[in-house]
Amino acid sequence: MMMPENHRLKMVGKTTPKLVKWDNSPASEVYFVADPKAFQGIAVKPQEAETPWNRRLFQNGDKLILDFGETLVGSLKMRLAPGNPSADSPTRLKIMFAEYPLEIVDTSEFHGLLSRAWIQDELVNIDDLPCEVTLPRRYSMRYLAIEVVATPKKLIFEDIQFQAQSCVKELLPPKPGWSEEMAELDRTAQRTLRNCMQTVFEDGPKRDRRLWLGDFYLQARANAETFKRFDLVEHCIYFLTAFQNENGVIPSCVFERPQPHPGDMTLTYPMHFASLLLDHLENTGDRKFAEYFFPIMLKQFSCLRGAFENGVLHLSKELGWAFIDWCTFDPVIAVTGVYLHGLHHAARLARKLDHIEDAERLEEEADNISNAARRTYFREDKGLFVTPAGEISYASQIWMVLGEVVTGKAAAEMLRQLRQTPEAIRPRTPFLHHHLLQAYAEAGDFNSLLEHMKAYWGEMLRRGADTFWEVFDPEDEMLSPYNDARLNSACHAWSCAPTYFL
Amino acid sequence: MMMPENHRLKMVGKTTPKLVKWDNSPASEVYFVADPKAFQGIAVKPQEAETPWNRRLFQNGDKLILDFGETLVGSLKMRLAPGNPSADSPTRLKIMFAEYPLEIVDTSEFHGLLSRAWIQDELVNIDDLPCEVTLPRRYSMRYLAIEVVATPKKLIFEDIQFQAQSCVKELLPPKPGWSEEMAELDRTAQRTLRNCMQTVFEDGPKRDRRLWLGDFYLQARANAETFKRFDLVEHCIYFLTAFQNENGVIPSCVFERPQPHPGDMTLTYPMHFASLLLDHLENTGDRKFAEYFFPIMLKQFSCLRGAFENGVLHLSKELGWAFIDWCTFDPVIAVTGVYLHGLHHAARLARKLDHIEDAERLEEEADNISNAARRTYFREDKGLFVTPAGEISYASQIWMVLGEVVTGKAAAEMLRQLRQTPEAIRPRTPFLHHHLLQAYAEAGDFNSLLEHMKAYWGEMLRRGADTFWEVFDPEDEMLSPYNDARLNSACHAWSCAPTYFL
Repeated sequence: MMMPENHRLKMVGKTTPKLVKWDNSPASEVYFVADPKAFQGIAVKPQEAETPWNRRLFQNGDKLILDFGETLVGSLKMRLAPGNPSADSPTRLKIMFAEYPLEIVDTSEFHGLLSRAWIQDELVNIDDLPCEVTLPRRYSMRYLAIEVVATPKKLIFEDIQFQAQSCVKELLPPKPGWSEEMAELDRTAQRTLRNCMQTVFEDGPKRDRRLWLGDFYLQARANAETFKRFDLVEHCIYFLTAFQNENGVIPSCVFERPQPHPGDMTLTYPMHFASLLLDHLENTGDRKFAEYFFPIMLKQFSCLRGAFENGVLHLSKELGWAFIDWCTFDPVIAVTGVYLHGLHHAARLARKLDHIEDAERLEEEADNISNAARRTYFREDKGLFVTPAGEISYASQIWMVLGEVVTGKAAAEMLRQLRQTPEAIRPRTPFLHHHLLQAYAEAGDFNSLLEHMKAYWGEMLRRGADTFWEVFDPEDEMLSPYNDARLNSACHAWSCAPTYFL
Repeated sequence: MMMPENHRLKMVGKTTPKLVKWDNSPASEVYFVADPKAFQGIAVKPQEAETPWNRRLFQNGDKLILDFGETLVGSLKMRLAPGNPSADSPTRLKIMFAEYPLEIVDTSEFHGLLSRAWIQDELVNIDDLPCEVTLPRRYSMRYLAIEVVATPKKLIFEDIQFQAQSCVKELLPPKPGWSEEMAELDRTAQRTLRNCMQTVFEDGPKRDRRLWLGDFYLQARANAETFKRFDLVEHCIYFLTAFQNENGVIPSCVFERPQPHPGDMTLTYPMHFASLLLDHLENTGDRKFAEYFFPIMLKQFSCLRGAFENGVLHLSKELGWAFIDWCTFDPVIAVTGVYLHGLHHAARLARKLDHIEDAERLEEEADNISNAARRTYFREDKGLFVTPAGEISYASQIWMVLGEVVTGKAAAEMLRQLRQTPEAIRPRTPFLHHHLLQAYAEAGDFNSLLEHMKAYWGEMLRRGADTFWEVFDPEDEMLSPYNDARLNSACHAWSCAPTYFL
């Protein structure tokens, strides 16, 4: 049966999940102090006040910083009262929402490459007191800072609640026998995933706030091991496939508002659609769903297929954007691996759905490219994949393993070799760090997997994370791909790996 | 019949008028330029742009200033669109509403005595484009300035409308035979009154935004000559009398939000309640309404009566605040005049309602005080009323005329004498200037009345007013009783005198 063209767009509307909402009181009043040993040089200290903040009289210029104990996504509700019998003029508040203290402490002029409006601060004028104020926008935050710019004499913050929202509320308890470190890794990853589970799997609830296919693939895998909200996975699949280009290729991101519409295209993300669909079939057993999307899945390879010549990929700027990591290196080997990874999963899906001819064709294509990649890039002397210009990167090796060009013990050996190659370009984003864990898993090297998770994700915990960050380089805490660390997202989907691997 | 205690408060709820709302497109795009000859040193010039503002592409840092052609009270609606195919980040706008250019041009640090939050500026973050935005607050403005702080690449202001609101929309046409100057004085006064006619007679729709008994008295008189919204007058009478103190004295101002409640008390404003009620009876013929409020009216004199000794008033700080003008001078003579003015009107009202005993008692009290005032303050050599410390003010003479201590030709002669007394303290506010006009009228000197109206209110017109200002000293355009001229209201009820006298 042919579905009408707009069937998937209709299904987007029909499958939008209802959000759970719950109120959160502030955990404590805090202040920030410069401390070179603390994350980004800012320590968080409890504020010892004689009068609790919700009974204190605030005057012009007074400030209040509250810590909600964990990073949450939602909206702010406040009950304000005048400290004097009658309020005869409006109140003006500067309100800042922060995932980490730097967003509040750094008041220097904005110097980022993205929109200044991503920084979560508001200037709010309130006409009449007493009143209840609910700010209309959604924020992602752990810390709330309020500066009283102007108030009729005295102001009391009688109550402040942050109404959190997500598809899911409760985190799952740790598995029996886990160490506290493992439990904390899992809890933090679950919280990261939960906060990104809104009406779509968002990449970051503070900044970007959209469905990215690459992040979604990792989120769907983590979701399958935790919250099992397969309805949200299906909603997102309808959403992405509602907007194919003339070759049937789906966008790499989509926007929900003001009405559903497509965003950027990349060359790499559509390759994950096969893996997504295969995972979903394995998780739900819903053949009908997989069958419906199978022809769309097959079309995703068309954006790269024409760029292979005798099994060797030729990338060019005209072809489009191939995202692998926030890093400038030659991605040709990694993109080849991403393509192969997709082909293998597509072939497996085809076999499961009894499309044998499709499966054989995909397997043959994968074999050819696999052989060409080994022939072209593998350097026996180094035991690693090397670009024509002699560049060695983690990205290349990771994706050659995930693309099944090297497997089993050979893969484990290559990754060991890689760790002993100091000139190898290291991963920058948790996105690529995740794929490194995945490569260790494919190579059967679970010790290295756990060791790397504890070293990288564990180091975020030791530096104060309660959700996993979009950007983390242990050597440079102020690193920002956007030229202003205030824009970095402290709760980012592509960092939720631990809960999947644990 | 005794009404229950909360009858008047109930009537406040039942008599709230419905507002008329109407959309206004900007009249023109303008820019401001320093010009020592212009009002407050700022000239308004038309912006000659190649592309009209509503088709222009705005980028970060761009500014737009629109002139709506007249001062209006209401809310802002905008339709925004991205200049590029898709908007991938929020938009941040700084929006300023101004009755006069200084409010936009003067970006110096706030140094006013009242709340900074009275300045009508907002910082607005908008998540998704295209969109329609309606700001939730009400503003009073003629000029709208928007600065694009941050936008995803390009922004288009497709439409901007200011939805005005008032109890009345249309101004009345000028009377036949009027000069253009008189027509303009009348139009401007009517617009001032219209903009203040919201769900109560507000004093200023930009700043204060409440019902003040003193302003209301003047507004009710102007309303009777123009829009004849006697329902709004009755609503305001219910409102003020719903909150009497233990002596039955009504507050001098009341607030509508968050729920009706009383504000400040003054010694002078309650004296006008008798005049208000008398006028209302004469305008509507509604004896029942006047009869109901008659006992409350009688109680208003109690806040001053005890301070008279042998007909001479003894003011003290403990007694309370006696507002006459924004000026530091001894108000004892003026307050005596205000009290007498009230007594005379109370007596007339009593006679009209056939409360003959009350009338005779009030008349006798007025006679005693009148004689004492003449005996105590009038200096034959100067032909003027002079305080014990030798101070001569316009306020004293005006209120001795309005209090009927001097009447007819003698009053006209005294006011002539006053004009030839350079050391006399001059009126500062349009409130006292209004009472000067009233004094000329009582003295039958209509030439001086018209001359003064053309000199004072006419000078506001010549300096660019399209509504009459709260504060206007021709010698000092930056004068502000609040230490920051940005706080001055450019549309203030107590300035609407001309339409009454015309």
